[in-house]
Amino acid sequence: MPDSTTTVASLRDAVRRFAAERQWEPFHSPKNLVMGLAVEAAELMEHFLWIDNDASRSVAEDPARLEEVADEMADVASYLLGLANVLGIDLSDAIQAKMVKNAAKYPVEKSRGRYRVEP
Amino acid sequence: MPDSTTTVASLRDAVRRFAAERQWEPFHSPKNLVMGLAVEAAELMEHFLWIDNDASRSVAEDPARLEEVADEMADVASYLLGLANVLGIDLSDAIQAKMVKNAAKYPVEKSRGRYRVEP
Amino acid sequence: MPDSTTTVASLRDAVRRFAAERQWEPFHSPKNLVMGLAVEAAELMEHFLWIDNDASRSVAEDPARLEEVADEMADVASYLLGLANVLGIDLSDAIQAKMVKNAAKYPVEKSRGRYRVEP
Amino acid sequence: MPDSTTTVASLRDAVRRFAAERQWEPFHSPKNLVMGLAVEAAELMEHFLWIDNDASRSVAEDPARLEEVADEMADVASYLLGLANVLGIDLSDAIQAKMVKNAAKYPVEKSRGRYRVEP
Repeated sequence: MPDSTTTVASLRDAVRRFAAERQWEPFHSPKNLVMGLAVEAAELMEHFLWIDNDASRSVAEDPARLEEVADEMADVASYLLGLANVLGIDLSDAIQAKMVKNAAKYPVEKSRGRYRVEP
Repeated sequence: MPDSTTTVASLRDAVRRFAAERQWEPFHSPKNLVMGLAVEAAELMEHFLWIDNDASRSVAEDPARLEEVADEMADVASYLLGLANVLGIDLSDAIQAKMVKNAAKYPVEKSRGRYRVEP
Repeated sequence: MPDSTTTVASLRDAVRRFAAERQWEPFHSPKNLVMGLAVEAAELMEHFLWIDNDASRSVAEDPARLEEVADEMADVASYLLGLANVLGIDLSDAIQAKMVKNAAKYPVEKSRGRYRVEP
Repeated sequence: MPDSTTTVASLRDAVRRFAAERQWEPFHSPKNLVMGLAVEAAELMEHFLWIDNDASRSVAEDPARLEEVADEMADVASYLLGLANVLGIDLSDAIQAKMVKNAAKYPVEKSRGRYRVEP
């Protein structure tokens, strides 16, 4: 089922079932899940470590590498969805609420083509 | 719109529009986006840094903190969705494909209540 | 040569030589090195992912695991020393300067036995 | 005291004293310290997030930014030294031991000017 017809809730259910079948809930504290998320984010990053920005765009044309990258993205997503489950956070609502805040922080006129380099 | 009715594609569209309106595509190479994702994962982690696993579960009962955590989760999600956009990866498909691999790697009978500590 | 007699400069020299012999300088931009550092920090973190704080202290009594952890710490250190080389930063000076700032931020009387949970 | 005359042990002592004066040892489990290390690595990374490899080299010529970067590097170093303290690991020995392993893994002749892109 592709992104066009898959709801976030159905993905959350799949992640919940996977953990429940294995009785992994005791391990899935928020603290552990965010650590796991950060670990997977780093594994994803590793695929783009020694190449420059331009070369990183070309990864989209390399099916074998793209599948590895997709696997790491899936791991990141699974931890994020699992965290939403454990904390009872609606992820879609959170994304939309944050986007409203970011739109105020980065108004279109002032942000066009410009990016903060400052952290 | 909550997780129950929001498709992944609609979130991807929102993230794509946000970047396009600001002409941020030149900054959004896969390399930069995975770095941004890792940075946001760390900011999320920071909320659970000095507490232990049990206390991290209690965050679910603290509305003020929960909103901060939700904001960071939204940032992680936005980078992940943006990366899916740039690389042309269907995230729902990727999650389901990875879950099949993980089910083979962690069979229910052998994994029940047990977790690899080894990386 | 142990920590008691090893200067930071001698470690920096060893890291510089290692990269120079392999002509890796073109890869070692600050951007790449900080990414590598974050990747290694995550690999280090992975060793402590599914255990709680108490159990993480017991790792000190497990020689086999301790060696794996030491290897990851060495990787983190090598990237940090390499970054100091590339940017021309004196790491010892930086640590001492930051400690002065932190001492002002966390005065002994106010900080004793207390820790900020807030990021 | 600069890198040329500062031993790793003296930096470890300074980090140990800083924590001891504030009675922070109960917070400084290995699990928490590696999380803190990863958080600081991400803050360091943030300084190089939206720039490309070439521009990241120019940071060395920007004194104001360099000081910020040095501060983040000091934070990374302090967590790493604190972890060495808690686990009883000699960091200099670990770095040298790992370098021997890496020299075997990346022989000079085969590695010259080449870098693995694969994780």
